[in-house]
Amino acid sequence: MRNLPLSGARLWADLMEVARIGGTAKGGCNRQALTDADGEARRWLAGRAATLGATLSVDRFGNMALLRPGRDASRKPVAFGSHLDTQPTGGKFDGALGVLAGLELLRALHEAGAETEAPLLLVNWTNEEGARFSPPMMGSGGALGIFAAEEVLAKTDADGARFGEELARIGWQGEAALPGLAAYFELHIEQGPLLEREGASVGVVTHALAQRWYEVEVSGGEAHGGSGMAGRRDALVPAAILVAEAERIARSSGEDGRATVGVIRAEPASRNIVPSRAWFSLDTRHADEAGLLRIEQPLRARAEQLAGERGVAITVTEFWNAPATPFDAALVARVEEAARARGFAHRRMPTGIGHDAVCVARRHPAAMIFVPCHGGLSHNEAESITPEWAEAGLLVLADAVLATAKA
Amino acid sequence: MRNLPLSGARLWADLMEVARIGGTAKGGCNRQALTDADGEARRWLAGRAATLGATLSVDRFGNMALLRPGRDASRKPVAFGSHLDTQPTGGKFDGALGVLAGLELLRALHEAGAETEAPLLLVNWTNEEGARFSPPMMGSGGALGIFAAEEVLAKTDADGARFGEELARIGWQGEAALPGLAAYFELHIEQGPLLEREGASVGVVTHALAQRWYEVEVSGGEAHGGSGMAGRRDALVPAAILVAEAERIARSSGEDGRATVGVIRAEPASRNIVPSRAWFSLDTRHADEAGLLRIEQPLRARAEQLAGERGVAITVTEFWNAPATPFDAALVARVEEAARARGFAHRRMPTGIGHDAVCVARRHPAAMIFVPCHGGLSHNEAESITPEWAEAGLLVLADAVLATAKA
Repeated sequence: MRNLPLSGARLWADLMEVARIGGTAKGGCNRQALTDADGEARRWLAGRAATLGATLSVDRFGNMALLRPGRDASRKPVAFGSHLDTQPTGGKFDGALGVLAGLELLRALHEAGAETEAPLLLVNWTNEEGARFSPPMMGSGGALGIFAAEEVLAKTDADGARFGEELARIGWQGEAALPGLAAYFELHIEQGPLLEREGASVGVVTHALAQRWYEVEVSGGEAHGGSGMAGRRDALVPAAILVAEAERIARSSGEDGRATVGVIRAEPASRNIVPSRAWFSLDTRHADEAGLLRIEQPLRARAEQLAGERGVAITVTEFWNAPATPFDAALVARVEEAARARGFAHRRMPTGIGHDAVCVARRHPAAMIFVPCHGGLSHNEAESITPEWAEAGLLVLADAVLATAKA
Repeated sequence: MRNLPLSGARLWADLMEVARIGGTAKGGCNRQALTDADGEARRWLAGRAATLGATLSVDRFGNMALLRPGRDASRKPVAFGSHLDTQPTGGKFDGALGVLAGLELLRALHEAGAETEAPLLLVNWTNEEGARFSPPMMGSGGALGIFAAEEVLAKTDADGARFGEELARIGWQGEAALPGLAAYFELHIEQGPLLEREGASVGVVTHALAQRWYEVEVSGGEAHGGSGMAGRRDALVPAAILVAEAERIARSSGEDGRATVGVIRAEPASRNIVPSRAWFSLDTRHADEAGLLRIEQPLRARAEQLAGERGVAITVTEFWNAPATPFDAALVARVEEAARARGFAHRRMPTGIGHDAVCVARRHPAAMIFVPCHGGLSHNEAESITPEWAEAGLLVLADAVLATAKA
């Protein structure tokens, strides 16, 4: 179906139109989940899809599923999509690209009067970002039974508003159940600099990295900043050494290794008091459990050594973890073949970042397609991509979906 | 005047009595400047001193001066004292020891009917701690013209209460001017571990260290914690390396070198976001300007190197400084002679910590006497000293004062 009238220009026009919903003065988007802007974007999508012969159903988490029938109604649908919610100072493309590329696929099929064997299903997942209601991927996690439904519905935002009530308030709480999926494809911006740096326009995502997050706490002894250095039990200095060590160890643990310290505190937090307590968060990621241990083990050893040398106590406590998630080998190969056939420079790569596709992959065959974003910048109003990258993603998504749904 | 009835037991009893004013459940004191508790401690001191023939005068900063006439009214007084205010979770001895040892000296002279050539002046300085109203040493700094009077009186606490109004509210705003001083001696706990560790009961304080405080800021690039390590411009890691370097450099800069990072922040402060900005405070101290530079120069060089290697911007900005302040050589020698004559193990040492005596030393001859405190612990409800240390301090203070005032 190479002659399908897929249009990068129409996709780009839709991206710009949706970006105005919750659009910010700096050119970004504030379209957080279950706000009025989220409701408006949902109505926009439902309206467009309705003209293309797709049937809307909404589940209890507000996930929107737009079904386009296939020749064989007994087959499970081939799904694709992403999310329309954004960070408070988010960009135009994170999430919206995958949904609107899916919409363009439905539009091209509709125009061509083309049929597929399997039904197609465009999904807009609720609250992927986890910005207003935490954690992220709440809609896909709820629908796929990874999170308990009642817990999701009871989550509150910073003002105490409940997820379930806000969903009802904007008119998007349904009762439909998500059907079983034959496959799920998600097109998304990379949110990292690799593809752009390598001049590739398509990333064939093979797996999601395993993650293990920690909290590291150092207890020492308070002292006055005027007291001598000998005998100090400064809590911050060993913490600082461990922050630098975490980076060094992750870099030497292989290409998939990551370590990030995003939050750090010293107490009592006075300029002339030697801290008696230091605390930092540590987010580590790797291809698999063995990779995670190549970061954790030397870091724990170094912490133990520092504690002994400095007369401080150091605890490294696991805070959260997520297993490595492989994508479906056949679907990944189909994405790669599409990129190859279209002549796009492409590379296999993992995602270090969570996506709805990672939740889906724990229950159904799934794969992801990345396109570059400038400078790897995302979760930022200045997030940007080129129309060419958007079109490359659209074409690879469409080819992989249609090869799976047997056009 | 070796037979003066100086009593360590009476001094100790006074310390315990004053500790009840603003006393905390954990055995410490919360007697912050210009609170009702401060007012009560002042009335207690004024009452005791009145029975010993001392005349109270109060200046516009609330500094209390208790004058005991000498044989020669034309001579400038020989002064001694410290402060009765404490940190919010302070101890029983920081400040109170110097004031109450001075009171015991007046009491012993009164009982003995002894006279001195020069008048004596016991001073209780206002707001040495700088806890409720910042900066510290506001009373001595104001009286000695180091701070502008109107600025001091206009300072506000966290609730917006003004220094001048709070001083009037507790009834301790006066109009007297502090007289010129022939000498000033201050007995104080060390607030560091050196004397106890060396088994000395008296510190002969020779000088106050020079201080230079900085703010260090690193600007890098935000990235997702799932993005690869290559190409990251993490702002926190170079900051952490500099925190560890500051300690290492200060330790290797000589015995008087100190470097303390008390406050550190990373932004945007999210567990899975590589920080784009890191900030920390740096407090450095050394015997003199050359010593300060032995810390600053290698640290700046390392910052420049890190900025180049990592594509981040690092600024090291001076925030505040205080010059090294030598104490008066003749008075220091008198303190040392008193410790020697009394047979107390003693050592010369600098103070790395600010004291009213350091302000006084910029205008008049001054010296300080340290006694140990357990574990160097101070600004803490668990601050503790032995009655023997308190008595050693009392005897050396008395001998040095009387040798100067010509008993």
